[in-house]
Amino acid sequence: MLEKTLRMNYLFDFYQSLLTTKQRKYMELYYLDDWSLGEIAEEFEVSRQAVYDNIKRTENMLEEYEKKLNLFSKFQERTKLIENLKTAIEKDVPNKDILLIVDSLERLD
Amino acid sequence: MLEKTLRMNYLFDFYQSLLTTKQRKYMELYYLDDWSLGEIAEEFEVSRQAVYDNIKRTENMLEEYEKKLNLFSKFQERTKLIENLKTAIEKDVPNKDILLIVDSLERLD
Repeated sequence: MLEKTLRMNYLFDFYQSLLTTKQRKYMELYYLDDWSLGEIAEEFEVSRQAVYDNIKRTENMLEEYEKKLNLFSKFQERTKLIENLKTAIEKDVPNKDILLIVDSLERLD
Repeated sequence: MLEKTLRMNYLFDFYQSLLTTKQRKYMELYYLDDWSLGEIAEEFEVSRQAVYDNIKRTENMLEEYEKKLNLFSKFQERTKLIENLKTAIEKDVPNKDILLIVDSLERLD
């Protein structure tokens, strides 16, 4: 469950701009702020089932976007490569200013 | 016009997985294979106007996706940073194996 939450947090991070305001709100409360389905239902005056269905649909949409665009998996690969790069630079490079460029690359993701 | 074609080629590259088969096909013929609207219309037995409308709509969709996800502008920034990194390494680093990691980073985009 923790693993799924972590994955959904990342996918939400990458694709939230493609969701509707309501989808975004439910996902934020459920995954980021750890509200229960019942609490969200009460807040928006809808049934618990409606919230559940909306969140399930959004989760599926996020997985579909990831299947098509792979932003999360590319991010993971890139993070690994940047780590390798940093280690190599720490070991081999006398002028550490190069790390500033690597930092900029890292911030871009 | 050349600039627009170049931009559409890039946007198509980044977001084509989010288009329908028909949208993809028209865009490929028009932007990648340089067919005219009339030629595409003839091939698919639809009006020239229908092809034009479809391509216009797709162009707008691609720009909308770019506004939301910024994959192309991030790619441009990343390309620039990777170029800087390569120049810095060429100048300062005795062990050029580090460039292999940078190459992998570059291929990832």
